[in-house]
Amino acid sequence: MDDDVLRRGKPTVHVEFDEATAMLVGDALQCLAFQVLSERSLADDPHTQLEMMKTLAVAAGSRGMAGGQQIDLESTGKALGVPELEFMHIHKTGALIRASVLMGAACGSPLGESDSQKLDKYAKAIGLAFQVVDDVLDHEASTATLGKTAGKDAKQGKPTYVSAMGVARARARAEELRQEALAALRGFDSRARRLGQLADFIVLRKF
Amino acid sequence: MDDDVLRRGKPTVHVEFDEATAMLVGDALQCLAFQVLSERSLADDPHTQLEMMKTLAVAAGSRGMAGGQQIDLESTGKALGVPELEFMHIHKTGALIRASVLMGAACGSPLGESDSQKLDKYAKAIGLAFQVVDDVLDHEASTATLGKTAGKDAKQGKPTYVSAMGVARARARAEELRQEALAALRGFDSRARRLGQLADFIVLRKF
Repeated sequence: MDDDVLRRGKPTVHVEFDEATAMLVGDALQCLAFQVLSERSLADDPHTQLEMMKTLAVAAGSRGMAGGQQIDLESTGKALGVPELEFMHIHKTGALIRASVLMGAACGSPLGESDSQKLDKYAKAIGLAFQVVDDVLDHEASTATLGKTAGKDAKQGKPTYVSAMGVARARARAEELRQEALAALRGFDSRARRLGQLADFIVLRKF
Repeated sequence: MDDDVLRRGKPTVHVEFDEATAMLVGDALQCLAFQVLSERSLADDPHTQLEMMKTLAVAAGSRGMAGGQQIDLESTGKALGVPELEFMHIHKTGALIRASVLMGAACGSPLGESDSQKLDKYAKAIGLAFQVVDDVLDHEASTATLGKTAGKDAKQGKPTYVSAMGVARARARAEELRQEALAALRGFDSRARRLGQLADFIVLRKF
């Protein structure tokens, strides 16, 4: 789909094998996700499991990741403003990160409306922060540190947070989103410690 | 993935748009299938819905359609025997046709073990018959009648039932599978009339 050749320091599937194989692996793994979610006893209540599957299906589909990726394809070579860029990333990357948080929560004891909303706020913030940081890292890092081909977005004429707002403001935006995420977790006490660490990791990571 | 350019007389998605768009549409439609299956009240019992989702996930994944398609990719240019060819098609096309029959049955009143087995036998027979007939049609028909690019399999060096057993034996095999399918339906009386028509359509179709 694009000329990415490295991920985590290793050749991507379509480079190591070929595009057709990469597509089939993607199709098969997508099925595997739904297969795992369909296993009995994943949640106490089968209705909860059905809700989790719906959450994943919507987040990965045309109104989520696949839709966001299509916007990305059509944005190459265009200068997007920050609102359009956020709209794209809320779908392309954010929807699946958000779904992961909500599905994890659904496996535990049911949350009240207010706690659910807080968790969703947290999930949206880290989903967006992930992409802002990705753009900053892609702009700054060398391929060796990053483990994937650096500078490719700019080279491909893809709009990024760095091209839209400059690197200093992009970094500040990532920190703002981290604080939003941590604030949303406050009512949960130590139960949410891991989620807080995840927000820190996403924003403070160097690769 | 290959050089198919027509389906039902219209350009395929990757020709009309591009490969990246075609892939995303596939991803999004796969999600949509699971989304539909996750809707409340699709079946009386949520456990039945979870079973249906598992049936689809397994049939479309690495041990079903995606796996069969990968065997297909790796078989191009090779002369396969009939058993290897059947193994490929039982996965590539057959698994999803079989899953469709079993998911349809799961929506109705529960079937006994013997009826389930008969239905599964029917489903396997039509799934395989579909591919045998496809190969015969691809060998015989012109692009205008077929609505898709004719003769492409042979041109691409793909093994087919026609290349493995000749057109006369392939036609006889399709008819044998139709009779197997119809025989499996016998105990169901008029309730299975549509399924019988489907078997007839799959084998007797001219396009």
